[in-house]
Amino acid sequence: MRRIAESTVRRLSLYLRFLEEFEQQGAATVSSAALAQRGGTTSAQVRKDLSFFGSFGKRGLGYAVPELAQRLRDILGLQRAYEVAVIGAGKIGSALVHYGGFPTRGFNVRWVFDRDPSKVGASWNGLYVRDVAQLEKDLAARPPEIAILAIPGEGAQAVAERLVRVGVRALLNFAPVQLAVPDDVAVKNVNMALELETLSYALRNR
Amino acid sequence: MRRIAESTVRRLSLYLRFLEEFEQQGAATVSSAALAQRGGTTSAQVRKDLSFFGSFGKRGLGYAVPELAQRLRDILGLQRAYEVAVIGAGKIGSALVHYGGFPTRGFNVRWVFDRDPSKVGASWNGLYVRDVAQLEKDLAARPPEIAILAIPGEGAQAVAERLVRVGVRALLNFAPVQLAVPDDVAVKNVNMALELETLSYALRNR
Repeated sequence: MRRIAESTVRRLSLYLRFLEEFEQQGAATVSSAALAQRGGTTSAQVRKDLSFFGSFGKRGLGYAVPELAQRLRDILGLQRAYEVAVIGAGKIGSALVHYGGFPTRGFNVRWVFDRDPSKVGASWNGLYVRDVAQLEKDLAARPPEIAILAIPGEGAQAVAERLVRVGVRALLNFAPVQLAVPDDVAVKNVNMALELETLSYALRNR
Repeated sequence: MRRIAESTVRRLSLYLRFLEEFEQQGAATVSSAALAQRGGTTSAQVRKDLSFFGSFGKRGLGYAVPELAQRLRDILGLQRAYEVAVIGAGKIGSALVHYGGFPTRGFNVRWVFDRDPSKVGASWNGLYVRDVAQLEKDLAARPPEIAILAIPGEGAQAVAERLVRVGVRALLNFAPVQLAVPDDVAVKNVNMALELETLSYALRNR
């Protein structure tokens, strides 16, 4: 499959959310205009985005809701569940472990690690906070595909390397550093200040 | 100024971070290749991104670090500070209020609101959690430009409308709903499940 821009992948995720709402309401078809509104884009962009993956719609009839939803789940790799480890039991880690939006999408947080002895052993949402020093021991038998790094910048690269060595293949990184990982490991950086900068840009350039 | 894609704005933010590191180290110039590495992109993309805003670099010499950093701060609206209100004193709200990355970028959280009487009155980082019922009264005299919605989906639209009425012009939205706001209000949605879906997509399509 050819490489698709991340901005396209994000719009596909938004279209899927809308399709699922439509599915629940029992709608059979949806127009590209309605999907565009959900994705904050244009009908032309929707048709272009979906055309990457084959032909779904019928001119004048719109898209078949359950079929398109199923195809998007397939494209996005959501036909299956993923196990997730959260590294860092601070405020961000806590928000993530308790976040209800993950399990409904098949992202199941199975481990939480921290290095702070006062946090290790605490129970969060039925999960025990584990000692990050034991990371290899705990994860080696069945490593999660995805790990979320919710730790400070110092040390993040070292922890990332340990996770990759143990078999983790995708990292969601909240640490304010660029991680160097092998090419076959996916990294997605989350930076809240950067999100606000897209707003300051919008305010500046109105 | 012509409209710039959000993906470009995000890369400009990343370039700025790299330039500031270089500035601290006393570097006078930086190559487009080095900026590309930081932005997870190519030299050609860096040159294209920066060409939107005029000519900065000299062939063979690279970009002048302090000048380019200053210009990017200007483009991103970071030559000034912004006041920010956080709505929702839950786990995400708490992580945001305590997040050190905001003040260093000039985003100053001045208000936290919640509707839960057991939270109202608590002191967070020197800020008192206020009653969201009093939002208009507290913000009317000097409304913040930016508000962050860290509340559940139900009620988010109503709170957004109250914020807009009081004068807020940009919303960072963690609530899992599409907000309908006037055209002159900027909205940026943050959805952690969606971030993980860019990773499941990558895992699926390796």
